[in-house]
Amino acid sequence: MVSAGAMSGSGNLMDFLDEPFPDVGTYEDFHTIDWLREKSRDTDRHRKITSKSKESLWEFIKSLLDAWSGWVVMLLIGLLAGTLAGVIDLAVDWMTDLKEGVCLSAFWYSHEQCCWTSNETTFEDRDKCPLWQKWSELLVNQSEGASAYILNYLMYILWALLFAFLAVSLVRVFAPYACGSGIPEIKTILSGFIIRGYLGKWTLLIKTVTLVLVVSSGLSLGKEGPLVHVACCCGNFFSSLFSKYSKNEGKRREVLSAAAAAGVSVAFGAPIGGVLFSLEEVSYYFPLKTLWRSFFAALVAAFTLRSINPFGNSRLVLFYVEYHTPWRRKTTRLGKYPVLEVIVVTAITAIIAYPNPYTRQSTSELISELFNDCGALESSQLCDYINDPNMTRPVDDIPDRPAGVGVYTAMWQLALALIFKIVVTIFTFGMKIPSGLFIPSMAVGAMAGRMVGIGVEQLAYHHHDWIIFRNWCRPGADCVTPGLYAMVGAAACLGGVTRMTVSLVVIMFELTGGLEYIVPLMAAAVTSKWVADAFGKEGIYEAHIHLNGYPFLDVKDEFTHRTLATDVMRPRRGEPPLSVLTQDSMTVEDVETLIKETDYNGFPVVVSRDSERLIGFAQRRELILAIKNARQRQEGIVSNSIMYFTEEPPELPANSPHPLKLRRILNLSPFTVTDHTPMETVVDIFRKLGLRQCLVTRSGRLLGIITKKDVLRHMAQMANQDPESIMFN
Amino acid sequence: MVSAGAMSGSGNLMDFLDEPFPDVGTYEDFHTIDWLREKSRDTDRHRKITSKSKESLWEFIKSLLDAWSGWVVMLLIGLLAGTLAGVIDLAVDWMTDLKEGVCLSAFWYSHEQCCWTSNETTFEDRDKCPLWQKWSELLVNQSEGASAYILNYLMYILWALLFAFLAVSLVRVFAPYACGSGIPEIKTILSGFIIRGYLGKWTLLIKTVTLVLVVSSGLSLGKEGPLVHVACCCGNFFSSLFSKYSKNEGKRREVLSAAAAAGVSVAFGAPIGGVLFSLEEVSYYFPLKTLWRSFFAALVAAFTLRSINPFGNSRLVLFYVEYHTPWRRKTTRLGKYPVLEVIVVTAITAIIAYPNPYTRQSTSELISELFNDCGALESSQLCDYINDPNMTRPVDDIPDRPAGVGVYTAMWQLALALIFKIVVTIFTFGMKIPSGLFIPSMAVGAMAGRMVGIGVEQLAYHHHDWIIFRNWCRPGADCVTPGLYAMVGAAACLGGVTRMTVSLVVIMFELTGGLEYIVPLMAAAVTSKWVADAFGKEGIYEAHIHLNGYPFLDVKDEFTHRTLATDVMRPRRGEPPLSVLTQDSMTVEDVETLIKETDYNGFPVVVSRDSERLIGFAQRRELILAIKNARQRQEGIVSNSIMYFTEEPPELPANSPHPLKLRRILNLSPFTVTDHTPMETVVDIFRKLGLRQCLVTRSGRLLGIITKKDVLRHMAQMANQDPESIMFN
Repeated sequence: MVSAGAMSGSGNLMDFLDEPFPDVGTYEDFHTIDWLREKSRDTDRHRKITSKSKESLWEFIKSLLDAWSGWVVMLLIGLLAGTLAGVIDLAVDWMTDLKEGVCLSAFWYSHEQCCWTSNETTFEDRDKCPLWQKWSELLVNQSEGASAYILNYLMYILWALLFAFLAVSLVRVFAPYACGSGIPEIKTILSGFIIRGYLGKWTLLIKTVTLVLVVSSGLSLGKEGPLVHVACCCGNFFSSLFSKYSKNEGKRREVLSAAAAAGVSVAFGAPIGGVLFSLEEVSYYFPLKTLWRSFFAALVAAFTLRSINPFGNSRLVLFYVEYHTPWRRKTTRLGKYPVLEVIVVTAITAIIAYPNPYTRQSTSELISELFNDCGALESSQLCDYINDPNMTRPVDDIPDRPAGVGVYTAMWQLALALIFKIVVTIFTFGMKIPSGLFIPSMAVGAMAGRMVGIGVEQLAYHHHDWIIFRNWCRPGADCVTPGLYAMVGAAACLGGVTRMTVSLVVIMFELTGGLEYIVPLMAAAVTSKWVADAFGKEGIYEAHIHLNGYPFLDVKDEFTHRTLATDVMRPRRGEPPLSVLTQDSMTVEDVETLIKETDYNGFPVVVSRDSERLIGFAQRRELILAIKNARQRQEGIVSNSIMYFTEEPPELPANSPHPLKLRRILNLSPFTVTDHTPMETVVDIFRKLGLRQCLVTRSGRLLGIITKKDVLRHMAQMANQDPESIMFN
Repeated sequence: MVSAGAMSGSGNLMDFLDEPFPDVGTYEDFHTIDWLREKSRDTDRHRKITSKSKESLWEFIKSLLDAWSGWVVMLLIGLLAGTLAGVIDLAVDWMTDLKEGVCLSAFWYSHEQCCWTSNETTFEDRDKCPLWQKWSELLVNQSEGASAYILNYLMYILWALLFAFLAVSLVRVFAPYACGSGIPEIKTILSGFIIRGYLGKWTLLIKTVTLVLVVSSGLSLGKEGPLVHVACCCGNFFSSLFSKYSKNEGKRREVLSAAAAAGVSVAFGAPIGGVLFSLEEVSYYFPLKTLWRSFFAALVAAFTLRSINPFGNSRLVLFYVEYHTPWRRKTTRLGKYPVLEVIVVTAITAIIAYPNPYTRQSTSELISELFNDCGALESSQLCDYINDPNMTRPVDDIPDRPAGVGVYTAMWQLALALIFKIVVTIFTFGMKIPSGLFIPSMAVGAMAGRMVGIGVEQLAYHHHDWIIFRNWCRPGADCVTPGLYAMVGAAACLGGVTRMTVSLVVIMFELTGGLEYIVPLMAAAVTSKWVADAFGKEGIYEAHIHLNGYPFLDVKDEFTHRTLATDVMRPRRGEPPLSVLTQDSMTVEDVETLIKETDYNGFPVVVSRDSERLIGFAQRRELILAIKNARQRQEGIVSNSIMYFTEEPPELPANSPHPLKLRRILNLSPFTVTDHTPMETVVDIFRKLGLRQCLVTRSGRLLGIITKKDVLRHMAQMANQDPESIMFN
């Protein structure tokens, strides 16, 4: 009996996986996938290919191609993501400069490219090469003076408004999913949720174009989060070309995890940081195989980007950064008018940003300037130190010098820029345009860090007899490096916003090449995580996911309450009994009525209503399809046909209608737990196995069902009941 | 009924967790832990503390201390691991030099320390400072000539033999577990296996001391693997101080994962690489919380090591590397005489190594020399290029110069050293002394890489009109860097041996600071993984685990066969039926007989033998303890007392003996799957949830049981049946 069951059971499994009618095995929009089932479907596909491969050479070659298709997809994703990032970089460069002027030799040259071939040799002169004309020079032939300043100011605002308007209109009309950073949604999708169109071709196209526009418009936002979204769209596009990935939502998510790594890789020029970011922050199911593939995709993407980058300046690639905001704003009154909102925020940003050199320049340039130390060639205000004639050290050796007027001016301007940046970023993030927050967060941290650094440096100069300085600052030795303070500040601020730790440090040192600063960076990351966690455990992405109400089961939340499966399962006391199917006594009409009257995603199948012994689980969607299909194609199926899930049809009176066999859509291995199972274990099972639902039994009898939404609802309830428990995690 | 059951169920869970008699909840040696149970025990402990914390200030403080104890343990591990690594480094330095000579001013000074204060200014002279005396100078007052050479040679061999003999004797007598690298065993322990004493205090002490001895003896082995073992011993020691960790095998393993990260961190001076190594290679259960803790421990350890390092030379810490061998040897005839084996191998190593400069120097110095490029100050043979008088470039700009005599000599010596190193490492690894294989592998790769590099460089010089060189090697530009070839070779060799990818690249660039070489390093890592996987999927650690037959369920193996739970479960067809307990009809004697006659780890409890409806699972160990305890302490318990697992005692005749209540040891939520569940899913469940056993049911009836060992046996069987399937992973 046992062995017969086993044999036919596996036979039925085969039937089921042959997909006898279309759409079986797909999911509806805004539903959750069943990881275990996707995995077992892939194994079956794989086994079929393996057994076929022994039949002929052609099948063998096909099986080889199938085995390598994973790497091919990674290669294609890397190439496209790298190319798009390179094109975005070039376009942003050109359009950012367009706000200030135009190149006479070729209007599509950026300021730097325009003056590249100029004959002037010094950096200062090259910056003012005759081919590059500011708008005031071009329009009224004045390069200095109040009227030129005002004209340039106006042109700057006009271009910014134009870019922002174009961007918000494109997003509104063509691809509403292209707004925001996309990372919270990608996290949700990777955890097994279906959002159709979120990673579609239109989103890819529009997000790429509008990203260029919004970054060029000078809004306080970054391109890194959106680049991750763009890379995931590439991943989705290429996975649709291979049936291995397009037909299996689980496998597709492996590709998307790797694409996310490629996205971060090109956003920061940090391939390893990208892999870690995908692992630590974004992905849900991340087996070691995906780790290696992500690594490969990130490598190809970084390599492609470096090949495209025409400046040959690794600093540029390594530091061309931006991202996704730390403060939270669900909606404002303006939020109802997204276009107007964008125009207003852009106008305010442009008007306030122009006069202050630290807000006028692009945020990544600002960060780069803040990170750098004052070398001999540095013309920055921040390096305006008074050279003490008594000191014989070379010019580029900066420590222990009193600050000059420039540094004090810079301090004031930085303080104002800091306040402005914090406020404007809060308003920018959440608008209906692609926007990231890595760069704004880092800029805020870097500004604060550099100011503290300069403060400590001057303190050390003026009070070098204080105990703390006496031991550390020996005369003539490097003592306080304000650039390092900026770097640590940026890392700390970013860490506080996203709660990244390991990936943050890796990205920071891939960005800056500052391997020797690993200890302060790690200390900053850990401290900022501790401090931020004291205010609440959620990083920006989790907060965003909760704000949008996505069914995301976070791996980081720990469930430590003492409830049991029986407290969570449906039906509860007083509710009508669980809707079940019996294995051989219900008619087609009974089932159709049940489907109409309920909206459950599936129904447990039992031996009989009395015994309540569970034999399997049938998905709603597949029941509907099977009945529809049978009514259309199978003869003799009418409303009072008996549906049976057993292997053999039940014995029926002679004149009864033809019965309908449904065993092939029956999942014979539904997941069960006993009613005494602690919810902690249940949560663990849902998380680790990626279940959609789980049946509850007691002594072999079916008692109820727990779905992923029940679990999420229960976790939210318990967290509200007992907020204190959070601190003990 | 349902709610009553739920309530009392949780009550019973409580009873059970109160640990009514000693030793409940512990495991026997060489058994596997139950991860789910450990986790739920920890949650209960945690809940108790949280609820108590509201009672008084003292309890509140205690609860805070408990919450922070994880970080405290990490801090202590970091401090101790860093200190031990620093002490080992210093001791190795001194003892390695002791083989060549002694310092007259203070015998505990190494060569470098001895000459540190010397007045000679050039490096050459400093090396020969008068305070440092070679053995020939000290004993026969000769520093040059054949007799001096022979005397030094003999002293070198003698010291090497003495160190090796001491090491192998100490290991044999005091701590047999201190031999080898320890990483395969640590992997097994982290996956949930119990090996008592493997991480004990004696192992810690002896491994630290003998590690110094064997590295100093000049054997072809590294100290990195053993350092990971040492760090894990520290982790085990500190976790025994906190009841949170000492009483919970699951929590203890979280600490050990972090300790492994700290170990790699100090072995290579690579904190991030350490965390990734622990994640990618060693750990089994690695939640994000452990990631952060590991990160902290690795940081503290690296910081402590740097503070101790007295040379202030970051290159030394960053490149003071070694590990654990690539070739596999289970036993030889000599293996039966471990002490003799060590003496013979040491003698051969010392005799052959001394004459060749590349084998005489320590392996880490060798690697460092091979990685370095030829700067102006470089006195290495490898940098003996002919300076072309027609070229006007500065001396330290080396490309495109013909090799001199020194380079050719070096090539021959390297070739011989390469062969020697490969052969001797095979014999060294597997001896009964602490030995790692990172460094020998890297040395082999670096030697091969450097030789290829020099070859290509000379090819480019002599044939600069070849197409491949014409495009890449413009005159006067850097073209071929042999040092980079060595670095890539080392990474590739290490990657092939261990199959690390991401952690390998991170460790390599933390070691060398070569952030710009990330692309070649990544390419080398991926390629070496592909090539090595073509020969077999197992890395050295997995191979070692299989060789020793540990029950390790590898996360990397994919199970893609089409078997079902019913094919694997016990009892099979023809076997006697499953041994079960009934809930209220067996006597104490019945159970004692059952325990005596079988050696199962536990027994399912059913309602009755007829209905076969499962109600729970009882562990063998706990049954034995409970019966023993009841017989000793409870009155009226005799051999024919009825044992009952229900909430209420069964109705018994008036004169029957007192019944024994055992519900508190009953696990009311045993894991079940149906007989139709694909083995693929079962393997996944065992892996992800860390189960010991799983019960198999059909339509609510108990059919059989699958244990972790059944799963492993089945996987091995299937892999043997169909070895081809491996290539399609």
